[in-house]
Amino acid sequence: MTGNTKAAVEFARQNGTRFVEELKALLRIPSISTLPEHAGDVRKAAQFVADELQRIGMENVRLIETMSPEHPGGHPLVYADWLHAGGEAITVLCYGHYDVQPAEPLDEWKSPPFEPAERDGNLYARGAVDDKGQMWMHVKALESLFAANAGKLPVNVRMIVEGEEEVGGEGIARFVRERGDQLKADVAVVSDTEMFAPDLPTLCVGLRGMIYTEIEARGARTDLHSGMYGGTAPNPFVALAQIIAKLKDENGRVMVPGFYDKVAKPSADELKAWKALPFDEEHYRQTEVGSPELTGEPGYSVLERTWARPTLDVHGMPGGFTGAGAKTVIPAKAVAKISMRLVPDQTPVESFAAYKAYVESIAPKGVEVEVRLIHSGDPIVVSTDNPYVKAATEAMREVFRKETVFVRGGGSIPIVGDFVRELKIPTLLMGFGLPDDNLHAPNEKFHIANFHRGIESLVRFFSGVGGRG
Amino acid sequence: MTGNTKAAVEFARQNGTRFVEELKALLRIPSISTLPEHAGDVRKAAQFVADELQRIGMENVRLIETMSPEHPGGHPLVYADWLHAGGEAITVLCYGHYDVQPAEPLDEWKSPPFEPAERDGNLYARGAVDDKGQMWMHVKALESLFAANAGKLPVNVRMIVEGEEEVGGEGIARFVRERGDQLKADVAVVSDTEMFAPDLPTLCVGLRGMIYTEIEARGARTDLHSGMYGGTAPNPFVALAQIIAKLKDENGRVMVPGFYDKVAKPSADELKAWKALPFDEEHYRQTEVGSPELTGEPGYSVLERTWARPTLDVHGMPGGFTGAGAKTVIPAKAVAKISMRLVPDQTPVESFAAYKAYVESIAPKGVEVEVRLIHSGDPIVVSTDNPYVKAATEAMREVFRKETVFVRGGGSIPIVGDFVRELKIPTLLMGFGLPDDNLHAPNEKFHIANFHRGIESLVRFFSGVGGRG
Repeated sequence: MTGNTKAAVEFARQNGTRFVEELKALLRIPSISTLPEHAGDVRKAAQFVADELQRIGMENVRLIETMSPEHPGGHPLVYADWLHAGGEAITVLCYGHYDVQPAEPLDEWKSPPFEPAERDGNLYARGAVDDKGQMWMHVKALESLFAANAGKLPVNVRMIVEGEEEVGGEGIARFVRERGDQLKADVAVVSDTEMFAPDLPTLCVGLRGMIYTEIEARGARTDLHSGMYGGTAPNPFVALAQIIAKLKDENGRVMVPGFYDKVAKPSADELKAWKALPFDEEHYRQTEVGSPELTGEPGYSVLERTWARPTLDVHGMPGGFTGAGAKTVIPAKAVAKISMRLVPDQTPVESFAAYKAYVESIAPKGVEVEVRLIHSGDPIVVSTDNPYVKAATEAMREVFRKETVFVRGGGSIPIVGDFVRELKIPTLLMGFGLPDDNLHAPNEKFHIANFHRGIESLVRFFSGVGGRG
Repeated sequence: MTGNTKAAVEFARQNGTRFVEELKALLRIPSISTLPEHAGDVRKAAQFVADELQRIGMENVRLIETMSPEHPGGHPLVYADWLHAGGEAITVLCYGHYDVQPAEPLDEWKSPPFEPAERDGNLYARGAVDDKGQMWMHVKALESLFAANAGKLPVNVRMIVEGEEEVGGEGIARFVRERGDQLKADVAVVSDTEMFAPDLPTLCVGLRGMIYTEIEARGARTDLHSGMYGGTAPNPFVALAQIIAKLKDENGRVMVPGFYDKVAKPSADELKAWKALPFDEEHYRQTEVGSPELTGEPGYSVLERTWARPTLDVHGMPGGFTGAGAKTVIPAKAVAKISMRLVPDQTPVESFAAYKAYVESIAPKGVEVEVRLIHSGDPIVVSTDNPYVKAATEAMREVFRKETVFVRGGGSIPIVGDFVRELKIPTLLMGFGLPDDNLHAPNEKFHIANFHRGIESLVRFFSGVGGRG
């Protein structure tokens, strides 16, 4: 460890409490990207991040608008860079997102989702770990390095922070596609994943893709009384139930014809490494899922089912009467929000086309169905054959005193596919969340020790990767 | 027609505009009995009705509380009587309800549901025909008779108006069961049904019963991220869909074992009379239902399917994410609101027990289901073999100049079963709604001419039925 790295680590440790307080201020902004009524909050969060990047010494800080006639709900990107490392220094592209998921159901939060609360060494708030807290680690690692290096960084850095990750990332995808030259770098670093287990440094080398869809079933012209019309009027909920029951069988297998045709099997080495991971299925069922039994395709392990097998879920079925008590309505229409997780080598385009055709073919009589694609993301597997992976594992070994494990993630980070495909650079998925951090759920949290270990790992990574191989 | 009847009819005609304005004032009170936050409005509507009964000359007017530890959400009954007709005069029990269904979806109303609006000879508002408008016909017929008879009525009258018809009528059912002597009468008259066609006087002689249920499916302990847990965590919506798909097949047949065992076939005479009714299935499909096709059991006509066959409908599926856009949640739980319409000789108790056992037996692995009965009502067929039916058909012939048709109704009016069973009196279901009045749906209306014809029919009925056989 060079003197400057040590000074940066020291700075981060001494300022750790302030870093957490700043993060709390960011978490208080309800930047829920999917809800139009929060568009102002989303922008406020963007400005908050931009202001801090400016303050710590980054340059060319700006909001990049993504709103356009084709993308009317676009939220701004935050961009900043510092490109004066000189010599053989490489350029690192840091990515994060400042938008968050909705917080519903609100009554299940032990403390309000936008009033960050510390309990038992954790920071509870919507966005604590996904991804405001992890994005903030990058900002604070850079601040620490600036402080320890007299206003300089050991590497060139570009930082791009988006506000649409939770709604498909259309704005940044377009930016990368059309103006990728503005993000020219040697490697991208993304902290939006989790560690396999507490204290176990982890790099994620694969992510599932997804298609998020809606099926709208329309029956009668208007809502009807089930007394008068029960027996003749089509019921859109019954129709959707019949469709869903034909989409996924009771073994968890997706029944869309051809759905599995392009699913690639993980390599024997990868499967072997997964078997060696410290994983207890019964413990996982009890502590993480908490259901009477786990579901999913027979013949595949939990890690295979969540990392390397596609699946289908229903997220909500709006329509009809959802209040307390009874209303005897046959609704004119109902919607099912359905997503599929995809794995290499499935593609969103082919999967959606097959799904749409199948749903239309099985729609029961009396209803008309409309199948809509809300957003999608490619499944990816990232390369581990580069010096940046080595720099990252060394940095984490110094902090955690353990060897890094390589895992995949079940979720989707659409931008990673774009970095691989458009920028043609390797991406490190170096995340510091924990499996029980309640992403997208009530009581989302970030283990505060991991926030600090993440900052220190990033400080060491930026220092270690500084010189070109 | 006696002189007094003629004077009462004349009074009703001259005061018709005022009657409608009074009804509008009642319709402005959002007395939605299923929503706890409207309990104050429900009571306000009860008081409105009581005040008017007092004003027109009824006696012993009072609100009867139904709230109790077992029935904490009970809404008051409105009771009034006038029992001085003397001699051989019979006693008529008038029934109506002042509560209404919720108005959702609000954005489909052309004028706000609680701001009554006249358009094209119709009065639009939630409750216009179901049942405030029809109940108000009784009040106004009594007012007209009091006015024409120097403060007397040609019959003894008891009037009972409930505020829980749309939520199962538990309060009045208990009152009839425990204090039925206070409702002692020779015949009950209920105006809460519709005419078979415009200008066609109609008596309804059968009603379907119902059980209204909820199935709650619980999987994971908390909401989970579908990226991380898709493939292992049970999905309560998928489970409910699989259950619903096994509850009703694609031909509309309910698959609960034994469900049809006690279904009684209508008599040959009744089926023959139904075939003679002016009914055009294609016109019904286009103008009333408006769906691409009708659904329901093959081999039965539309009238048989809606009047004499049981069925099952799903009314809403609360849970998960129902907002705009995307949220990738696997909800911890989801609910399906499901009702079954029952016909003679099915019973709510037996039907619910069979349904509950079946649902529990088909619940997919990974979820726990809870099957709840929200409310129920007996199916009934009422007798036509009594002098009151003759008096009613004569009264309506004088107003409509047509013979009355006898039909059944697909809906449920739970109290009718209680009148038959507990009070052991015949009930006349003399309603003046129209098939396209949008009961329980947006843009509910009452054809204003039918409001006036209903009042006149009731005036003539009360006069004609005055003397005991």
